[in-house]
Amino acid sequence: MLDNITEISILYDFYGVLLPPKQREIFRLYYEDNLSLGEIAEEYGLTRQGIHETVKRGEKKLREFEAKLRLIHKFEKEEEIIEKLKKDIEQIIYVHKEDSELTAKLEQIKERITKLNQ
Amino acid sequence: MLDNITEISILYDFYGVLLPPKQREIFRLYYEDNLSLGEIAEEYGLTRQGIHETVKRGEKKLREFEAKLRLIHKFEKEEEIIEKLKKDIEQIIYVHKEDSELTAKLEQIKERITKLNQ
Repeated sequence: MLDNITEISILYDFYGVLLPPKQREIFRLYYEDNLSLGEIAEEYGLTRQGIHETVKRGEKKLREFEAKLRLIHKFEKEEEIIEKLKKDIEQIIYVHKEDSELTAKLEQIKERITKLNQ
Repeated sequence: MLDNITEISILYDFYGVLLPPKQREIFRLYYEDNLSLGEIAEEYGLTRQGIHETVKRGEKKLREFEAKLRLIHKFEKEEEIIEKLKKDIEQIIYVHKEDSELTAKLEQIKERITKLNQ
């Protein structure tokens, strides 16, 4: 189970770009720069409560994007498959370790698979 | 170069879910069911011009989503890498065709790589 801040950070990495600029900026100050609601409020000349609501609205939107697009879900599923593929290739490399030409090719394939989800 | 309808269909596949329900519905009738603007206008009790504007607004939004999230771009890049990986594995299989245990394992890896972008 991810804690709330980690969850929001991941959501922000995937969907932050879809938030309106001002909301995104406030979000960034709060979650990345760790400014307090009061500090952000002062910077924007808004109330602490206003900033709090903006952050909460942003969180809700990010969760809605994931519910609709499921990019994080797909990413995690792909990561799992990639990890499994890498292990299977490593096993083949181990079994055929005397065949340097084969293992070199498989190492290269493994590297390229690793980069697929980046 | 993709024609406009193909381009919009792909954009809709990736981002249609982010359009508001009514806009999405009109979009679907126009692009998937190939109803005319006039037919959709009649169904909704709106003007042909109103439907035309809704469709155009939808297209603009879909393009904005791609400009921000780049999912189609990433998908196509991944497809290219996957195709290349498959070919390289096929070549190894061909070279080692007498080793049925190895080729069976590589065939299975190839299958799983193919499914990564689906």
